[in-house]
Amino acid sequence: MKAVVLLSGGLDSSTVLFQAKANGAECYAISFDYQQRHRQELDAAVVIAQSAQVQQHQIVAFDLRLWGGSALTDTQMDLPTRSISEMANHIPTTYVPARNTIFLSFALAYAEAIAADQVYIGVNQLDYSGYPDCRPDFIQAMQEVFRLGTKQGREGQSIEICTPLINLHKSDIINLGNRLGVPWEQTWSCYSDGGGTPPKACGQCDSCKLRLAAFAELGLEDPIAYIIT
Amino acid sequence: MKAVVLLSGGLDSSTVLFQAKANGAECYAISFDYQQRHRQELDAAVVIAQSAQVQQHQIVAFDLRLWGGSALTDTQMDLPTRSISEMANHIPTTYVPARNTIFLSFALAYAEAIAADQVYIGVNQLDYSGYPDCRPDFIQAMQEVFRLGTKQGREGQSIEICTPLINLHKSDIINLGNRLGVPWEQTWSCYSDGGGTPPKACGQCDSCKLRLAAFAELGLEDPIAYIIT
Repeated sequence: MKAVVLLSGGLDSSTVLFQAKANGAECYAISFDYQQRHRQELDAAVVIAQSAQVQQHQIVAFDLRLWGGSALTDTQMDLPTRSISEMANHIPTTYVPARNTIFLSFALAYAEAIAADQVYIGVNQLDYSGYPDCRPDFIQAMQEVFRLGTKQGREGQSIEICTPLINLHKSDIINLGNRLGVPWEQTWSCYSDGGGTPPKACGQCDSCKLRLAAFAELGLEDPIAYIIT
Repeated sequence: MKAVVLLSGGLDSSTVLFQAKANGAECYAISFDYQQRHRQELDAAVVIAQSAQVQQHQIVAFDLRLWGGSALTDTQMDLPTRSISEMANHIPTTYVPARNTIFLSFALAYAEAIAADQVYIGVNQLDYSGYPDCRPDFIQAMQEVFRLGTKQGREGQSIEICTPLINLHKSDIINLGNRLGVPWEQTWSCYSDGGGTPPKACGQCDSCKLRLAAFAELGLEDPIAYIIT
């Protein structure tokens, strides 16, 4: 079994990579340099891919600042620092138009080029229900695109989209990652670039807050460094 | 009405751009520098976009040579020079895995960022039935992704995919383009890079053959320069 794994370098996608490996897949990681402000996640992705001993790690570069529209690519916009209750069902300014569609399209191209069987993605609907492109019906629609948009799919060998985290809360993901031995200290979730050496996560953005709350809920300590916790 | 138009610089997409304009849409063109060997088409796209007086023309750059798999990105592979009868229902080596999926994904991102209503694409199933990602069922699947994968779509304002050429033969497209005033001399269809100044189309690749045959069928002269016709 050969799998392409979307790897951002964060907690979710790192867990997915270790899950794919535990499932016996030969793993090919793919990451995206889209000029996100939290470029630190790309360094994390490289380290995590090495830790998981992937067969290959592709980093695809393009510039999503071209048309803007997101606090993740526009440094003139403030990052949201909401409370967790405010996050539910509200699409935040960190939403990047069509990002998962673009990411899955490249993963599909890579998967077809290497004749992979699966594409893994770490979407989860419970904690980020605000994002339209993290929901199960969107994944189903992309599955149809995978089937009809490729030579391999037309020949009855459609590449399967695997979403092992789709119904998990962040704390469930941490429990799963702990069982799989995910090296949390190598991951990067913060939306800011973590200036300084070594970089520190801000502790204030939505992503930091969800991560910290989940570790706290489990009575565990998050091993990465924060400016404020 | 605001429309994003996928513009390769070839005969089909140029016709689509002029059709979108004739339909009254305010046009935003998008082209892709994916390290295709026929980079001449990008220069053509720039000129055509100017001729059509688009509001904006975005060129998105990324490297599809990363994983190869196509004669359009791998200069070590020969370009196919088949007869037209050999082309029917055979996926050629110029097939680029998931190319239209990637192109439509970026068009969707651009469209959502500028709050466009439509995305135009020049797919046609009749002459290129070999390509899986040019067929109507694939476009329908992408339409579902457009609806479910965006904030705008979730709010009931789904961006519509328009395929005005889907049921046209190449000669029909030329007739349509003539009515719309498409400047054929500015277009580039050839799969080779057309070395020399000014560049000349090879006249031998699948794309040149289809184009030349269609002009000939109509008793018209193709105004671009060929090395061999």
